[in-house]
Amino acid sequence: MSGQAAYADWIAVDWGTTHLRAWAMGPDGTVRASAQSEDGMGRLARDGFEPALLDLIQDWLGAGPTPILACGMVGAKQGWQEAPYVRVPAKPAELAPMRATAPRDPRLRLSIVPGLSQAAPPDVMRGEETQVAGFLAREPGFDGVLCLPGTHTKWVQLSAGEVVSFQTCMTGELFDLLSHHSVLRHSVDAPALDPAAFLEALADTLSRPERLAQRLFAVRADATLNGTGATVSRARLSGTLIGAELAATRPYWLGQQVAVAAAPALADLYARALQAQGVPARSLDAGPLTLAGLARIRAAQTEPSLP
Amino acid sequence: MSGQAAYADWIAVDWGTTHLRAWAMGPDGTVRASAQSEDGMGRLARDGFEPALLDLIQDWLGAGPTPILACGMVGAKQGWQEAPYVRVPAKPAELAPMRATAPRDPRLRLSIVPGLSQAAPPDVMRGEETQVAGFLAREPGFDGVLCLPGTHTKWVQLSAGEVVSFQTCMTGELFDLLSHHSVLRHSVDAPALDPAAFLEALADTLSRPERLAQRLFAVRADATLNGTGATVSRARLSGTLIGAELAATRPYWLGQQVAVAAAPALADLYARALQAQGVPARSLDAGPLTLAGLARIRAAQTEPSLP
Repeated sequence: MSGQAAYADWIAVDWGTTHLRAWAMGPDGTVRASAQSEDGMGRLARDGFEPALLDLIQDWLGAGPTPILACGMVGAKQGWQEAPYVRVPAKPAELAPMRATAPRDPRLRLSIVPGLSQAAPPDVMRGEETQVAGFLAREPGFDGVLCLPGTHTKWVQLSAGEVVSFQTCMTGELFDLLSHHSVLRHSVDAPALDPAAFLEALADTLSRPERLAQRLFAVRADATLNGTGATVSRARLSGTLIGAELAATRPYWLGQQVAVAAAPALADLYARALQAQGVPARSLDAGPLTLAGLARIRAAQTEPSLP
Repeated sequence: MSGQAAYADWIAVDWGTTHLRAWAMGPDGTVRASAQSEDGMGRLARDGFEPALLDLIQDWLGAGPTPILACGMVGAKQGWQEAPYVRVPAKPAELAPMRATAPRDPRLRLSIVPGLSQAAPPDVMRGEETQVAGFLAREPGFDGVLCLPGTHTKWVQLSAGEVVSFQTCMTGELFDLLSHHSVLRHSVDAPALDPAAFLEALADTLSRPERLAQRLFAVRADATLNGTGATVSRARLSGTLIGAELAATRPYWLGQQVAVAAAPALADLYARALQAQGVPARSLDAGPLTLAGLARIRAAQTEPSLP
């Protein structure tokens, strides 16, 4: 079918450690189709990326090359092709995607958004810079802190469209390891959190953060000795870990304008934790931010330069 | 072989979550034989305990009943038969083992050493109370703090042969989860620690314990950005977690006489950490303590009461 027209003007790709998502983009930012799989970077060898992508998007391709813009761990050292970090301060919307040489299939014209790095304290992000670009596309005048809770929560200080500094906490990964694989797992196996117990553990940890190491086992001891239920124990584990995160990130939220973007339940939990500290945090759904960021970064590359 | 004499006067059993060890005891505390398997509590259903024990010790039994004294998770709610906790303050050497009704085989006359509990802050131990009894059998006059590092490190305040209070930290389990199952695993995969990096991370965490949540991801970020080697990264992870533990347990070591008992390399690591804080900690091998404690507890039960 030589000469066949592509279904997509370009293809947006969000390629993380555990997931692969793609959108077939039409004119004017319309989404013609989307697809996803679990072919995340974590389970692919170097030569597995191209087949995984083709599996998902080949129906959207024409005979000629289709531009593809990808972000996330696909550009990590262990990814398909490394896109070196750009050091902050940096404007996410103006990040220059790296043209990849990797795809063998001539129909794939792949570019990868670079991650951001910070020299001191040392820190890195890959994928979140695109969410930040998406957030700033919606709120170009935002000056304050964007918190992106997740496996590795990012606290991002923004000013004049620029990432000034950022800080990562492993809170989500710690919660996941402790709630699924540690001695606490039986005590915290509940579908929901007790809100009062969450706020109490949060306040306790923030007022005495040096006691974290003992507070974790106390969750189990209290369940064993006093029959404390899993809804309360889970809230205590969550409140303790988020409290430790807030203790470590105080300069990022104290007296700041904070927006929290994550899956709605998680964003609300962080917003409630911040509000309990007197911070007027608002929460928003992070779902649409990555695609919005990819569209913004692509637009910045294809816009004619200003004189 | 009716009438056959037992090979063991009694049998000592250390039954934890992941291991089962047994000793055939002769007269005057001599050990005639020992055996071990991986039939820990964690992989046994209620009816699996008796066969697992028989597998290990049946050659030591005679026709009549043989006394067996066991400690550890075998007496937990999820164990063979629950031996209720004894609340501190309590003298480990004088803990009354619970006579178990469980074994069906009449040759097994099983007793289980109870664990210790503390009401506030809530805490529990099972197995370590026997190590404490073994330690006190060697050093009856000890007045100070015994630190037992491991999966769940116990800090035990001892006075006049009594456990006055104790505190558990999940440091070992956290190190294990983070070094094997988290995003840090590639960065810290080394057989040894850099001693200077360990002490530096320890001091940093002790001086600013509220920053723990950010320090963990920084281990990886620094490895990624600056090519820091695994020996240094592993030392930083260890120093950060032990630093957090020392920050949480300060009342247990500040100005105290501290003995650290664990596997030799681990005991030395904790002793070095404490010495760096000016605490004259000494380390000893915890290996022989459980058997010494079981012998001490048994002797206390069989000694004629003083008038």
